[in-house]
Amino acid sequence: MILETVKSEITAHLSYLFGMGKEAVAVDPQRDCRVYAEIAKREGVDIHYIFETHRNEDYVIGSKELSGITGAEIYHGTWPEFEYGLTTYDGQEFELERFTVEALHTPGHTPGCNSYVIYDKTSGDIPVIVFTGDALFVNEVGRADLGGDVKKPVWSANLYDSIHEKLLPLGDNVIVCPAHGAGSVCGSNIAEREVTTLGTERLMSPVLQMNREEFIEYKVKEHQEYPPYFRMMEKLNKEGSPPVGFGPNPKPLSPFEFEEDLEKEAIIVDTRSPTSFASGHIRGAYNAFTPLLGSIGWVLPYDKPILLVLDEETNLEKVSKGLVRIGYDYQVGYLSGTMVEWYREGYQLARLETMTVYELNKDLESGEEWHVLDVRGVDEYETGHIEGSQNLYVGRVDKEHEKVPADVPVAVICSSGVRSSFASSMLLRNGFENIHLTLGGLHAWKKAGFPTVE
Amino acid sequence: MILETVKSEITAHLSYLFGMGKEAVAVDPQRDCRVYAEIAKREGVDIHYIFETHRNEDYVIGSKELSGITGAEIYHGTWPEFEYGLTTYDGQEFELERFTVEALHTPGHTPGCNSYVIYDKTSGDIPVIVFTGDALFVNEVGRADLGGDVKKPVWSANLYDSIHEKLLPLGDNVIVCPAHGAGSVCGSNIAEREVTTLGTERLMSPVLQMNREEFIEYKVKEHQEYPPYFRMMEKLNKEGSPPVGFGPNPKPLSPFEFEEDLEKEAIIVDTRSPTSFASGHIRGAYNAFTPLLGSIGWVLPYDKPILLVLDEETNLEKVSKGLVRIGYDYQVGYLSGTMVEWYREGYQLARLETMTVYELNKDLESGEEWHVLDVRGVDEYETGHIEGSQNLYVGRVDKEHEKVPADVPVAVICSSGVRSSFASSMLLRNGFENIHLTLGGLHAWKKAGFPTVE
Amino acid sequence: MILETVKSEITAHLSYLFGMGKEAVAVDPQRDCRVYAEIAKREGVDIHYIFETHRNEDYVIGSKELSGITGAEIYHGTWPEFEYGLTTYDGQEFELERFTVEALHTPGHTPGCNSYVIYDKTSGDIPVIVFTGDALFVNEVGRADLGGDVKKPVWSANLYDSIHEKLLPLGDNVIVCPAHGAGSVCGSNIAEREVTTLGTERLMSPVLQMNREEFIEYKVKEHQEYPPYFRMMEKLNKEGSPPVGFGPNPKPLSPFEFEEDLEKEAIIVDTRSPTSFASGHIRGAYNAFTPLLGSIGWVLPYDKPILLVLDEETNLEKVSKGLVRIGYDYQVGYLSGTMVEWYREGYQLARLETMTVYELNKDLESGEEWHVLDVRGVDEYETGHIEGSQNLYVGRVDKEHEKVPADVPVAVICSSGVRSSFASSMLLRNGFENIHLTLGGLHAWKKAGFPTVE
Amino acid sequence: MILETVKSEITAHLSYLFGMGKEAVAVDPQRDCRVYAEIAKREGVDIHYIFETHRNEDYVIGSKELSGITGAEIYHGTWPEFEYGLTTYDGQEFELERFTVEALHTPGHTPGCNSYVIYDKTSGDIPVIVFTGDALFVNEVGRADLGGDVKKPVWSANLYDSIHEKLLPLGDNVIVCPAHGAGSVCGSNIAEREVTTLGTERLMSPVLQMNREEFIEYKVKEHQEYPPYFRMMEKLNKEGSPPVGFGPNPKPLSPFEFEEDLEKEAIIVDTRSPTSFASGHIRGAYNAFTPLLGSIGWVLPYDKPILLVLDEETNLEKVSKGLVRIGYDYQVGYLSGTMVEWYREGYQLARLETMTVYELNKDLESGEEWHVLDVRGVDEYETGHIEGSQNLYVGRVDKEHEKVPADVPVAVICSSGVRSSFASSMLLRNGFENIHLTLGGLHAWKKAGFPTVE
Repeated sequence: MILETVKSEITAHLSYLFGMGKEAVAVDPQRDCRVYAEIAKREGVDIHYIFETHRNEDYVIGSKELSGITGAEIYHGTWPEFEYGLTTYDGQEFELERFTVEALHTPGHTPGCNSYVIYDKTSGDIPVIVFTGDALFVNEVGRADLGGDVKKPVWSANLYDSIHEKLLPLGDNVIVCPAHGAGSVCGSNIAEREVTTLGTERLMSPVLQMNREEFIEYKVKEHQEYPPYFRMMEKLNKEGSPPVGFGPNPKPLSPFEFEEDLEKEAIIVDTRSPTSFASGHIRGAYNAFTPLLGSIGWVLPYDKPILLVLDEETNLEKVSKGLVRIGYDYQVGYLSGTMVEWYREGYQLARLETMTVYELNKDLESGEEWHVLDVRGVDEYETGHIEGSQNLYVGRVDKEHEKVPADVPVAVICSSGVRSSFASSMLLRNGFENIHLTLGGLHAWKKAGFPTVE
Repeated sequence: MILETVKSEITAHLSYLFGMGKEAVAVDPQRDCRVYAEIAKREGVDIHYIFETHRNEDYVIGSKELSGITGAEIYHGTWPEFEYGLTTYDGQEFELERFTVEALHTPGHTPGCNSYVIYDKTSGDIPVIVFTGDALFVNEVGRADLGGDVKKPVWSANLYDSIHEKLLPLGDNVIVCPAHGAGSVCGSNIAEREVTTLGTERLMSPVLQMNREEFIEYKVKEHQEYPPYFRMMEKLNKEGSPPVGFGPNPKPLSPFEFEEDLEKEAIIVDTRSPTSFASGHIRGAYNAFTPLLGSIGWVLPYDKPILLVLDEETNLEKVSKGLVRIGYDYQVGYLSGTMVEWYREGYQLARLETMTVYELNKDLESGEEWHVLDVRGVDEYETGHIEGSQNLYVGRVDKEHEKVPADVPVAVICSSGVRSSFASSMLLRNGFENIHLTLGGLHAWKKAGFPTVE
Repeated sequence: MILETVKSEITAHLSYLFGMGKEAVAVDPQRDCRVYAEIAKREGVDIHYIFETHRNEDYVIGSKELSGITGAEIYHGTWPEFEYGLTTYDGQEFELERFTVEALHTPGHTPGCNSYVIYDKTSGDIPVIVFTGDALFVNEVGRADLGGDVKKPVWSANLYDSIHEKLLPLGDNVIVCPAHGAGSVCGSNIAEREVTTLGTERLMSPVLQMNREEFIEYKVKEHQEYPPYFRMMEKLNKEGSPPVGFGPNPKPLSPFEFEEDLEKEAIIVDTRSPTSFASGHIRGAYNAFTPLLGSIGWVLPYDKPILLVLDEETNLEKVSKGLVRIGYDYQVGYLSGTMVEWYREGYQLARLETMTVYELNKDLESGEEWHVLDVRGVDEYETGHIEGSQNLYVGRVDKEHEKVPADVPVAVICSSGVRSSFASSMLLRNGFENIHLTLGGLHAWKKAGFPTVE
Repeated sequence: MILETVKSEITAHLSYLFGMGKEAVAVDPQRDCRVYAEIAKREGVDIHYIFETHRNEDYVIGSKELSGITGAEIYHGTWPEFEYGLTTYDGQEFELERFTVEALHTPGHTPGCNSYVIYDKTSGDIPVIVFTGDALFVNEVGRADLGGDVKKPVWSANLYDSIHEKLLPLGDNVIVCPAHGAGSVCGSNIAEREVTTLGTERLMSPVLQMNREEFIEYKVKEHQEYPPYFRMMEKLNKEGSPPVGFGPNPKPLSPFEFEEDLEKEAIIVDTRSPTSFASGHIRGAYNAFTPLLGSIGWVLPYDKPILLVLDEETNLEKVSKGLVRIGYDYQVGYLSGTMVEWYREGYQLARLETMTVYELNKDLESGEEWHVLDVRGVDEYETGHIEGSQNLYVGRVDKEHEKVPADVPVAVICSSGVRSSFASSMLLRNGFENIHLTLGGLHAWKKAGFPTVE
């Protein structure tokens, strides 16, 4: 048997290869999909089917390319109309020699969501594993807001019913394989624990303790952000994305070549840590620290060449693949020799001031004029923020920068100092001059015992 | 979170590293134990505890050496008295920052068996994972015969109670991590599926459908073999095995050097496929094909130098580690250039005749004189064998070869042709001359439609 | 700096990635060419040029696909007219930031052969490395027979001049990077040592000690075989081979599926060791043991589906890639579970008798009727063979099997027992019945002290 | 054949495994020496000898531990008296089956330096490879100053004679394998190119163009630094260093645990990039950016616990091994979650101001009071520095900080901005408050066209 979880860094997406005997199926393959074919070769299995749980919105799915490589058939749910693969009906069974896969319609996150249930024919006839896509995560459930505010109550109700009437009845014993882990934009409270069962979720997941009404009310109230790149993902996933093959091959560029590309409207994505970025960066760069690289989808256009700045050149593969997974193929190059080379060659650079929470608090207490910009999500903001601070979600800062006062010093803050650096880089790009990054963020602020309001 | 299963090839042993945050625990580490320390380093966790489910008898445990490397404390059950580590009491809890481990006494396989239950403190207070050692496998339970025939009923009853009164009450939802997978000498019916839960076992495992009486009767009737190397494993595991460090470092030897060692009473373990062995091997070699290498413990002494013959030299590591896991450290060398070199250098060689089931059947039907030696286990033998065949378990053939008639042609048969080659090599070593290996074994015999009796 | 040698198993072909700073060039890339792009990415270099030393005849070159992945320009020599890439002139220089590459016309092996010389601009202006293609190997030079017997003297003379007037004058100090290592069909006496310089070759290579006349005479007399697949390689290399992408993806097949494909004219390539093959194989299979897999080009057509039998399934990648490198893309599947599964399922099988040199000698001495078929090359045969033996090169046995007497027992012999098994399998395919494989071959025969004639 | 170069990151040390047939030798193995035994196992060779070129002073040699693992004998030169292994005489030959190793006394770098020459017995009797230790590098020769000023002329003369009378006469064709590559503290002008021959060196190496007198004069004038850790290396190498086994196992520590260790006199080595360090670091930390980690030997005591701060946790292995290679085994832990965790937990932090060369120049031109501290080596300083700048080599700043004025703003500068950050961290540790790191260093200064004096 093989049950291999492929974790897509950057998107916190989980996909699976399951097989018994010499037959296997893939579930929700990532875009750089050779990995499944390679695992299959290594394990001596042949991928017969590729199952999509739904038209994903937060990453590009690699089913079409994987199907081309392996000859496997693609199956998905009933909504939207996909331009490739086949549509399942509820309860459709896929018979393999040693196991059966049953497609279960579990709408809610979208109207066309499927779960896929595994039966081990060699042991008996009860379900043993379920791939739940974005219906059910560890300690959390999927979003129900993607249809917009009007549809939210209905989608939420559907999600409740899918979980309570379709999934949980499969049995406490069933192992759950969801499409996302902690860190995903598809569920803010996903637990660190990566293994679970329907029983464990039924007994411990906070949202599963609510009754139908509570659940719908809770989901309707939930605030979740909808980054602009979602629209591109939805389009690509409906159509089937272009093949990635060897993938984008960004070139090592000298500072001189980098400057040349900048003149051709290239956009810099600086993936270094906020502190590295703060001490010296190329003017105009976005600071999307590798662990939150996915957020770059809020601001990065799809039709401009992308230039990368890396902490270490060995990170190229991770960064490049991370961007490909959200559809950014137009990667022209990266700075060879890292920023050290840029400094050495005597090119100009910009800085971002940093401050500690102690410094911020002292200034605020002593009445200095500071505008505190809190770039966390509204739900986070409401759990406690610095009095007088403005809330503007990090993803919106670039487009809505005019909401931020330009003539006073601004202390940008988030929970830890990472998203606030991304937001700060947006403000700097838009001409702001007096921007300060608050290291440690609200977490440090609270640890230090400074006051917040809710 | 990390839950990494380390599969020990050859012994079909499963061990685990579980961690949340930056703390981890290891369960039943294999003897070549650097792997856990390396995973821990890679994942940024520190191993705090090493838990042993029991004094294993089928492989050497690496706890002591791993403890030396990592500083982790070793815990085990109440029987026997271990010469290292600490003893748990039933229900003892080990508190880590984000999870709790509870030691549960689950005797039966041995009187001192423990299971270890994981509670995820970040999500709630019900159990989520249980490490069951040799109490519960996928579709199977542990052996209860290691105390001998007299204790078998009591140990079986204990095992039933441990499963039904200690393990199953933890909840259907709990994920089960057993100490063995399919192919282990510790459970003959372990399923191919590698993931399960208490609920799945409760509902589907054949032995868990029995009531207490049925279960005890079933276990008492079960025939399982007790290879002589078990005694060495038990001794080493009680005392704590000597460190393996870089491990045995068998040298590449020329045919000439090989011969020299043979004169010093070295014993050859030929790990090539039975067909390779049949066409030409070094006189006196045991044929333990790599996938069943563990069985070599039936015949190989611990105090003689070991010489290896490999199908391909790239298999050295796998074979060498496999032997180390059952305590064979005295590996002096392997044949460089494989048997091709042996042939090229013009050294003498021996052969083993092969026959197909068609040939065997034809001969038997036409009344030719054949002694059919069936070397499967008695339970297998009783499910159907060739009329008139003698049953002598492969492990016993070397010692009890006198039970086999020496003056007639012998057709050695097992289920597929692998164990029968091992048995044939024993007979050849003991001077038998007219030995034939039956390719495909009883499986092929039945497929071909030839008759069996029960 | 990077100088990475990529060794293509099976074809004994050597290719190179050389770079300084962030610029690199590839020389003679193998067909599965992603590896160069991956090394380049890992090392932070960009491949600017791909240099071909000549239109190869013994493997398919991957320049065109690599150019598509990296954007590098392809350059080759003046003959033949290639349908892709650009042609160099003698002495053409390629300037990179830190090094220069000079194309040197070094005809002889073919009229369009190039060597490529590296100058390290950061250290001075003398040559430091030369990529010699098939002009100069370690201890050996390239073949000069590919133009046929008529052109042999001219091509030999050209080769002499290229070596003595173009290459050696570069200086004793220059490191030599040839296109082949030991085991290649392009040079029978290539040394085991893998590093050399022009000086070392000048002083020690036997063929470089000859004067022009001696050299020409020596080359003209040389017997080298021209396998039929060379013609396909030449065609593909002239045109640019089709991209291999993820490559052929042979499926795991059950014995039943295997049989189905056999009925569709599939051809079996059994890559197991001769001894494994001998004990039991599928009727009609060729036995091309993995280390000599390249020889399959003598007999395998390009338009029939290929079925693989492997010693171990982990060898799939190596075997599959090996075949791709000589243009065999039509790989439909491999036997899942290896031959053990075939035996178990009770399918029919064929055998090949083996004999030792002692047995053969005894029979010959006692006057038994044996036809000894020696399948080594004629040059090998002439260094000593069994009296009365017939010489027919292994590659020709399939087509010219009628030259072998069908009504007497045949002992097939080569130098060690590998090529003779391949030849034996051809005879068995052609209906021969009394075929014996001589284990150890002439090497063992001589070691045993048995007589040979020259 | 195998010739594998093991590159020790951090120390820029090169070591080798050379073998033919099934026999191999190791030259100058690094301290974490399992790698050689693993390569040997993979390649099917047995390490017969370990050759040391000299008692190294810049890294700890792993011969003794490797000998324990493999059983190989250790050989070294005649000085000093080693407490393990055997001493060679000049011209001593080590015969292996297919090759010979000749020990050649080549004193100069130290009085007991050896080179080792390889003869390939299968091809002829001229030398083919020479392992030159610290006598000859690519484009450079070894240091001759380790005996102190008095012995410098003699050691320099010896070095000249070893090169010109012992090494070069071996022949232009001989491939050179030195003990160091670019970036080593043992040769400041080692070229980027990594392959060379005696001929290439004879023709292009600048120092080899000098006559004996010029050479001696040149070497006597050379300024090279002697870090205090050299003394420890010399001691360990003379005695044979303690085994590293699994190696130090620094634990992941929370900010709280980090602080606890700090109170026990632990010393922090912050290996992040200078810009990351500048924006926020733990007070008292040394900033030894990973690529120059070896320099930490100037300041770090051997008897204090070491705490690591990493850019990314995946760098742990590289950093930990780098320290082990220069004898720092007392590594207690690293900051789990990196500095982001430190900020989040609200711990105090310190900063280092950065400035560009444009800012520095503007300030200097406008007459602002700046003390410019140039921490490059004196040879570099003399090739051009900022007028009025003080030269104090980075390695000496910690101990001799009193030479730096404490009451004026200090701009610390080196060639690029890496060593200057290390020096800045020393000043901060010593209580300096007004320290500025000049990004880009002299290289940027010159690129920008600002004036220097010599």
